This record gives sequence, C-alpha cells and structure tokens, in this order.
Amino acid sequence: MLPRVKRFLLGSPLRTTELHEQKLSKKAALTVFASDNLSSNAYATEEILLVLMAFPALLHYAFPISICIVVLLTLVVLSYGQLIRAYPSGGGAYTVAKENLGVGAGLVAAAALLIDYILTVAVSVAAGVAAIVSAFPVLLPYRALLGALAIAILTLVNLRGARESARAFAPPVYTFLVTIYTLILAGLYRSGAGSAPPATVQSDALNLSQLAMIFLLGRAFAHGCVALTGVEAISNGVQAFQQPVVRNAQITMYVMAAILGSLFLGLSYLATAFHILPKLDGSETVVSQIARQVFGESVPGWGLLYYLTQFSTMAILILAANTSYAGFPRLASILAADRFVPRQLANLGDRLVFSNGILVLGAAALALIWSFGGNVHALIPLYAIGVFLSFTLSQAGLVVHWRKSREAGRWWRFGLNALGALTTGLVLLIIAVVKFQEGAWLVVVAVPAVMLLFWKTRRHYFELQTELTLADFEKPRVARHTVIVPVPIHLNRVVLTAIEYAKSISRDVIAVTVNTGEAKTDTLLHNWKKFVEDVPLIVLDSPYRSVARPLLRFIGEIEDLRTDDKVTVVLPEFVPQRWWHNLLHNQTSLILKGALLFRPGIVVTSVPHHLGEMRAGRGREPRHAQ
Amino acid sequence: MLPRVKRFLLGSPLRTTELHEQKLSKKAALTVFASDNLSSNAYATEEILLVLMAFPALLHYAFPISICIVVLLTLVVLSYGQLIRAYPSGGGAYTVAKENLGVGAGLVAAAALLIDYILTVAVSVAAGVAAIVSAFPVLLPYRALLGALAIAILTLVNLRGARESARAFAPPVYTFLVTIYTLILAGLYRSGAGSAPPATVQSDALNLSQLAMIFLLGRAFAHGCVALTGVEAISNGVQAFQQPVVRNAQITMYVMAAILGSLFLGLSYLATAFHILPKLDGSETVVSQIARQVFGESVPGWGLLYYLTQFSTMAILILAANTSYAGFPRLASILAADRFVPRQLANLGDRLVFSNGILVLGAAALALIWSFGGNVHALIPLYAIGVFLSFTLSQAGLVVHWRKSREAGRWWRFGLNALGALTTGLVLLIIAVVKFQEGAWLVVVAVPAVMLLFWKTRRHYFELQTELTLADFEKPRVARHTVIVPVPIHLNRVVLTAIEYAKSISRDVIAVTVNTGEAKTDTLLHNWKKFVEDVPLIVLDSPYRSVARPLLRFIGEIEDLRTDDKVTVVLPEFVPQRWWHNLLHNQTSLILKGALLFRPGIVVTSVPHHLGEMRAGRGREPRHAQ
Repeated sequence: MLPRVKRFLLGSPLRTTELHEQKLSKKAALTVFASDNLSSNAYATEEILLVLMAFPALLHYAFPISICIVVLLTLVVLSYGQLIRAYPSGGGAYTVAKENLGVGAGLVAAAALLIDYILTVAVSVAAGVAAIVSAFPVLLPYRALLGALAIAILTLVNLRGARESARAFAPPVYTFLVTIYTLILAGLYRSGAGSAPPATVQSDALNLSQLAMIFLLGRAFAHGCVALTGVEAISNGVQAFQQPVVRNAQITMYVMAAILGSLFLGLSYLATAFHILPKLDGSETVVSQIARQVFGESVPGWGLLYYLTQFSTMAILILAANTSYAGFPRLASILAADRFVPRQLANLGDRLVFSNGILVLGAAALALIWSFGGNVHALIPLYAIGVFLSFTLSQAGLVVHWRKSREAGRWWRFGLNALGALTTGLVLLIIAVVKFQEGAWLVVVAVPAVMLLFWKTRRHYFELQTELTLADFEKPRVARHTVIVPVPIHLNRVVLTAIEYAKSISRDVIAVTVNTGEAKTDTLLHNWKKFVEDVPLIVLDSPYRSVARPLLRFIGEIEDLRTDDKVTVVLPEFVPQRWWHNLLHNQTSLILKGALLFRPGIVVTSVPHHLGEMRAGRGREPRHAQ
Repeated sequence: MLPRVKRFLLGSPLRTTELHEQKLSKKAALTVFASDNLSSNAYATEEILLVLMAFPALLHYAFPISICIVVLLTLVVLSYGQLIRAYPSGGGAYTVAKENLGVGAGLVAAAALLIDYILTVAVSVAAGVAAIVSAFPVLLPYRALLGALAIAILTLVNLRGARESARAFAPPVYTFLVTIYTLILAGLYRSGAGSAPPATVQSDALNLSQLAMIFLLGRAFAHGCVALTGVEAISNGVQAFQQPVVRNAQITMYVMAAILGSLFLGLSYLATAFHILPKLDGSETVVSQIARQVFGESVPGWGLLYYLTQFSTMAILILAANTSYAGFPRLASILAADRFVPRQLANLGDRLVFSNGILVLGAAALALIWSFGGNVHALIPLYAIGVFLSFTLSQAGLVVHWRKSREAGRWWRFGLNALGALTTGLVLLIIAVVKFQEGAWLVVVAVPAVMLLFWKTRRHYFELQTELTLADFEKPRVARHTVIVPVPIHLNRVVLTAIEYAKSISRDVIAVTVNTGEAKTDTLLHNWKKFVEDVPLIVLDSPYRSVARPLLRFIGEIEDLRTDDKVTVVLPEFVPQRWWHNLLHNQTSLILKGALLFRPGIVVTSVPHHLGEMRAGRGREPRHAQ
C-alpha cells in the first residue's frame, strides 16, 4: 500500500537518462533567480521600523538607513560580478572559499549556507503567511498551521521534481513587480499631493546619548540588511545562462539589484511619509498598511489592487522559499560527494531530484516555523547572519584568487573584492553583535555544530575506507562450522525445520534450550529422541526465569571454547499473518538477534516460518527431496 | 546501562524458589482487602449530591438515597457470602461465570473486571489527589501531573514486588477509620447542638414532573452506587485467609460492609445537615468541606484533625488503587493460561510478580488519568458499570450452581442469589442508561472490544498449535542449497568475507550486484576476477536507480527457477561503532531483510562486520585456518 501512496503523491519513477538541463535567457533567468532577493522587500523595511519605533523621533532615519543599505547592496553586487567572472561554472561560496582559503573556510561557508537555505524557507513562508493574514486577519491564530501546510506542499511539489521552470515563475514575479511599482508611484503621487498627514517630530531623541543613538541606528541598519539575502543566487547558477554566460549573468544581477534597490527605497520612503508603524503582534505587515492607505481608501475600485498586492507578495515569497528547495539539496549533494554529509544526500530519487535533501530541508524549516509559531519577527533575527558570513568568505576567497591570477585588470578586481570582503565582514560583525540576544546566538552556535558533524562524518567514511580496503586482503578460510540452534521448551515443526537446515550447513550442530522451571523438560527430551537423534540438546537451567541471558552466555562460551571455527546461530522464527500477532509471542529471537548484533564474528541466520501458509496452502514451503 | 537502571529501580532478580504465600487473620485481611471498598466513601456521597444539586429542593433526598444504597449493599454482601461458601478456593466473577454460565459469560465478566481494575486505579488516584488538592488548593492545576506521578510510583513499587503486606496496610486503614468516625461523631454532635445552619427548602421541586423527578432520583442513586465498588475483593481472595477460611472470609466481609454502610450513611447525613454542595471545578471534595466545617472553625487545635482526615483519605485511596495492582495481573495471568490474552502476561518477572500485567495496568490507568485531566467527576461515570456487570454475572452463576447442588439449604441460597442477580442486574441497567451519555458508553463499547481481542487471541494460539503440531511431521531434507550474496558496486573486504562464508555453507553460490549507472562496473569486474574466481557475479541494470527492487526480483526468480532446493540470502552487514553512523550508510541490507521476511521459504543470514574492530584490535575476527 505504501508504494502506491508514494506513487500517487510523487508520480511514477523517472529513468536516469531523462535527466537534462535547459539554458535560460536573461529575462527567464531573472524570474528564476530573483524571487529570493526581491521578495525580501516584503519584510526589510518593516525590520528597520521595528527597531526605530522604540524612539518615534528617530523614525525619519528609516529612509537614510535604507540608502546606506542600497550603497552596501551596490558594493556587494559589484563584488559578485567579479565572482561570476572568476567562476563561470557556478561558484557557490563553498567552492570559492574551499579552493582559495582552504577546506576549513569552505566548510564554514557550507554550514552557513545550509542554515540560511533553511531560514530562507522558514522566513519566506512565514512572511507569505503574514501577507495573507494582513488581508484576512481572521487567520492570525493559524499562522503556524498555514506555514506548515505551505512547507508540506512545497516539499511535495519539489519531491515530484518541479524543475525551475521559467514559464511558471514569470507570471507571479512580474505581477509582483507591476503591483509594487504601481503602489510606489501611486503612493508618491498621494504623498506629494499632500494626502499624507504631516510628520510630527518629537523631541525625546534629545534624551538619548550619542552612543545609544549610534547603537540604535546600527541595529536598525543590521535589521534592514535582510534586504540583501538572495543576492548570491545568480552567481550560484551561472551555468544555467545562455552564452555568453558571464555577461548575461552579470547584467541580470545588476538589473535585479536595481529593481531591489528602487523597490526598497520606495517602500521605505512611503512608510516614513505615511508614518506607518509595524504591528508587534504580526497582525498586519508594513507593506499591507502602505497598500491599504494608498489603494484602499478613497477610490473604491482600487481595493482590488490591495488584494493583488498581498497575493502577489505571498506568491513571490513562496517562490523565494522554493529556490532553497533547489539550492539546499544541490549543495548537500556536493558535500555528500566530498563525504562531509551522509552519502544518501547524493542519491537521485525516483523523480531525479535529491529527495533526501528536500526532505531534510522541509523537516528543518517545518520545525523552525512550528517552534517560532509562524512569527516572522521572531525568525528574522536568525536570518542574514549566515548570508553575510558566506558573502564575506566568498569575497575573501576572490581576493586570494585575484592575487594569484595573471589576468588583466586583476588589481582593481582585487581591490573591489577586498573592499567587499571588509565591508560585508564588518556588517557581519555588527549583525552578530546587535542581534545576538534576539536569536542570532542560535546561528552562532549552529555553524560550528554543523561543521563538527561535517568532520565527524568525513572521518567515519575515511576510517571505513581504510578498513575495507582490498589491499593486503587475505581470504578467510572457514575450517569448521559450529551451528547453535536455540530451541523452545515446547518442540514444534518450525524448530525441527530449523534443525534440519542447520544440519545441512554444518556437521557440527548443537541445540540448546532454557528451562525456566515452569514446564517439564521430560516431554521435550522424549520428543527430541523421537524426531532428532543426531543433534545434542543442552538444557540450561534458569533460576531467574530469564531466557535470553543464559542463551547469550552459552553462545559466548561456545565461541570462546572453539577458536578455529565460525559460529552461526540459527534462529527458528515465526512470521505471523498480522503484525499485532507479534504481541502474542515472546520475542526471544528478536532479543537474541539484537544482542548478537553486537558480538563480533557471530553469524545469525533466521529460518522463517510463515504462519498460516501450511493451512492456506498459498505459501511456498521449504521443498523436500523425493 | 539499561540493565543497571532497571536493577536500581527494581532491585535484584529473585529466584523462582523464593515464591511463597502467607495466611491472613481476619483483622489483617480487613486491612488488605477492605481499602478498595471503604475508600469509595471519599466520593460516593459527593456523586449523589452532584446530581441532586441541579434542583436544590431535592437535596434532602441524599440521605434516603443513601439508605437505599445501603440496602442494596446488604443484599449484595449476603449474596457474596454464598459465593464464598460455594468457591472457598477464591472464585472471581470470571471463574464463577465460566463454570456455570459458559465461557462467553466468563469472558464478559473478565472483560468487565479488567476494565474495572483500570478504572479503580484511575478513580482512586484521582480522588486521592482531590483530597490533597482540597487541603492545598494551589495544587489544583497540577491534578493530572500528580495523578500520573502517583501511578508511576505505584507501578514501580509493584514491579519491585510489594507483597500485600498486612503490617504495612494496617496503619493507614485504621487511621482513616478513626478519623472518619471522629468526624462523623463530632459532626453529629455539632448538627444536634444546632451549630448547623437551618435547612431552607425551596419550592422549585414543584416545577418538576413526576417522571423527571423519578429519573433524577434514579440518576442520583446510580451515581451513589459507586459506594459498592470493591465489595467483591474478599471473595476473590478467600485462599489468603486462615482456617476456617469460609467463616473467616464471610465474617470479615460482613464487618467491612457494616463499616462501609455506617460511614456512608454518616457522611451523607452530615452533607445534608450542613448543606454542603460539591464544587464543580473539583477544587474541594465534599468530605473536605464537611471536615472543614466540623473541625476547622471554632476550636483552633482541631485544624490538625482536618489535615489528618485529608491525608488518611488519600492514603486509603492509594491503597485501594494498589489492590488493583494485585488483582489485574492475577486475572490477566489466569486469562493468559487459558490463552485469551498474550502469553507474556503469565510470565513471572525478575521480582516474581507478573510484571507485564502491572505495566499494562499502569499504562492504561495513566492514559485515563491524563486524558481526563485528573478530574474525578469526569472519570466516575465510567466506573461502577463494570462492577455491577460482574456482580450480576457471578450471582447468576451461583443461581445455576445451587440449582445443580445437592447441599442442604441450597433452596434459600438459590433464592438469595437469584434476588441478588435480579437486583444487581436491574441496577446495572439503570446505571448503563442514566450514565450512558456521561461516559458509560465508553465502557459499553470497551467490553465487547476487549472480548473480541480475547477471541482473536485465543484463535491465533489455537491455529498456531494446530499448525506446529508434531503429529504427521515429516523431516524436510535439503537436497541443494543455493546461496545468493548481494554485493555493492564497490567491492570491499566485508563482502569478500561474506562470500567466503557463503562458499563454506554451499557449493552453489551466486553473487549479484546492481548497477544504478553512477559508478562503472569495470573496477568491480576486475577486482572480482582478482579476488573471487569461483563465484559467478551477475550485474543487474537499474535504470530507475532503485537497488532493493531489482535484487528482490532476482531473488524471487532464482527461487522460482530452482524447485528442489533451499535459497539462503547471505547479507554482508556493517555494524558501526556508534548508532548514528547508521545514518551514514544506505540501509540496503535492512530493506532487503524487511522485504525478505515476507517471502516464505527464504532463509536470511547476516554476516556482520564490526567497524573499528580491526583497527582497534579488541574484537574477535573470524579466525583463519593455518
């Protein structure tokens, strides 16, 4: 039944030969790679305001802070332009850092990226749910549930093998761009026409010391830096572009950055102009409040535009989460090939996707969404730290790369990337410090923890390889076989079948039974004489009524006694017709199997008897010779 | 480590020969067997009031209803006196019903009793917690937790093998009797001295139709019948009495009933006299309210008596729960001997108690307490129905018994038990009807469900016995052995060891590997020629990348092809040093084992390789011949 359910949900398996890749035009690539980055507009402005609202007099700093962030964005994008040039085959932070800075740095980047992919899913889905909740406040208590549902659907769709299809991605991305630009233009017109209430600057800013003010503005800046998440997406996927790949990828990235910057500045300006404050309970997003003010009030038909804004915001956020479903499993499979994570993460599933990676990502994001109650504000402090860690490492890697390079113009590229590395490193430090208490410490702990797992895993595989090598392999020759058959106190045909099996694989068979004092051994001995003449039966007395312990002791003694042979334990086993029938039997053979698993050098053989097969006559009994 | 924890909690195992029984005097027997019955005073009066308080004008009926219940008690006790006479070896309802009315009736009684043992634990523990909560209202939110804790401790103590020690039981039972009698006498004095406020009879009784009033009084009566729970305890344990057993047991039971009746009437009278109403939120019991009024107010030193009442009430309720820990496992072991429940319930554990029965009881009671939030009022409607079911069945069984008997006085005994059977049957019907909606339906459903399990279990064992019989057993002779060894695409020494093992048990070995297209088979074939000349290797292509499916198909084909032999699948297996290392390997051999378990006639052999043993040199490798 399970395989049928699986096939219904995931579709039929695909042949390995059906794997193929498709090259994207610039316009198509924008829709595929930009959603992660552009969707951060849904929460970036809100995060700045969230910090500043503690001192309303500082709220007008939101726009200048946004300008600072756009300057940072420009620097990062120019830096990444050089990364695309240096790694036209698609250099993720892991590859760049590993090649130029060593394996350790590469693994830091990989750990940061894996964590960030998970956070991208959790944050994007939570923000998408927030957009819907803003339009339909009745859904507020079901945030976590809605988020979990969205993740379940995303996981399923990706397990089915949703290729990153530009055709499917284009409508939501362009709808989002059109509605948000419309919102910004209409908002600018309205605020210019004086429909925005006048700003009232309060004087409590004077109560703040200069240091406290710098710290507060720094925090606001650090919070706003989530706008930059997803910038690296294009540099990871350069391979997917049409020729000339480098130029096309660079241009697409610059276009994306320009769109991001303009949207971000526009929304930050409007939020300040309309004096919008974030709702702490998450009942309405800042974007929703702007849209409600701009669209929702005077002109009645424009209300539709409001809903369009909310739905397209949700759609692009879901697409953003979806990009992680491509990135995480791909990175995990690269790490698996290098043996830093379990091999299974490199397995192509039935539908030619890295199913295990998709499942791990889905489960982790689900756990995050659930434990943070689907609350965006609670999740965001964890975010961005990993992004800036990988920014810094890849820029630093490029610095080394250009230093060794012999290319023309390597010196200004070196300078640009050095500036990029220094700046993003500084921002990383700021983020880690100001967000530490709010949750960033979780990531600060998680990165080394994940790295430890990498090393432990790698070491295990390495040791395994050394141990299993065929060099200096000497064939073991089995001189003698001792076979031990544990026998219950009530003899039955299943046991006798097992004894015959044991006799067929060795001439040295010992049967052993445990007498717990309840039943008499007379009948057993009588039946033994009648049915099995040629196998010695040893009766162990068990005053404490335990069956497994005396048997295990006996098996151990036999193994110690005979040094020149191989000990095989043959276990007669019932396989009942229904699973719950297992509850009706003492699971002695299961206990023995479990215990013998940890005894080196003992081979365990199960001779199964399928209950009901004799009666029903539909099974295949061990055949008898004529 | 687990065995050490177990030993710490339960103590060292005991030898079978340490099992012995102890005979009880009447006084000792009273403390051992009466707690279940007498403890029902903690909630019986409260249950009557709970129904009547819907119409305050009817509250003064509480005392007359209590008198009716005491009349019923007298009848039941006299009936049970005859049961003791007829079954001096201890006749539980199961035995009596089975012998006289047939197996079906016996199983109804058994199902009812098992359910009632569980409910006794749950209700008594919940009521014990309620007594403590009444004294310390701050504990109210932790009722379920306290109940769960009490059950955990009871289970542990009984797993250690707490014999029903009369010496340990006497102090709490006698303290309870002394304090409650003191309470009643002091209360009577106070109410007589006029310190009780005058009763104000309201007139809303007139608004009730006669039918509705009868139904209401019937409900109150049905609720009060929980007072009778535990009456049967002595008749189950007649064996434990000193000679003359019948007379001693009868006298003890009559004394117990007299105490129960007087306490019950006393408490019901005081509750009416002091106009006490139950608290619906369970924050204070009726007994606690009586005690607070009688002891707590005027004379300051008497406050201590109040706490004594509450603690001794709790203590006797815990003892009552404890009696089920003797009764349930004993009945379960009798049923297990008759093969109606899993055999394991008849196993004597390390400490010479029926550990599995104790665990089942504890788990079931815990589940009940937890799902009803530790609320006595919610649990009680489930109670009593099983008790009266077994009352009715055992009295009916006695009717048949006396009819067949040739004893003097059998006719009046016949009449007495017939009256008993009819009356308890009628009460059973009333209880089932009026409490149906409140939760009794759960029991009405559970009894047949448990019976179905009895029959299904019995049938399974019966079929098993038929199938495994040694009559007409013909030795299977294995003519040929085919051994199949699944081999991974990367050859290693674990696999080669398994191949050598396979060769040692048969001359007909086939190795098989699956090519999923990722790795090249050239290296494998090269290594194969080098290390294994004499075993054919078959390569299966797997375009869908599945490993297990092609292997299983291949094994099935080989089995179909060769009709004159036995197929053994030898699986090379890793046993990693740490459990989590298992996550780092494809669990192909586990999947194969699971799938092959359901293929009749295929023997599965695991050749384990313990990782690290070679390197560490502390394990025992399969020995090689010189």
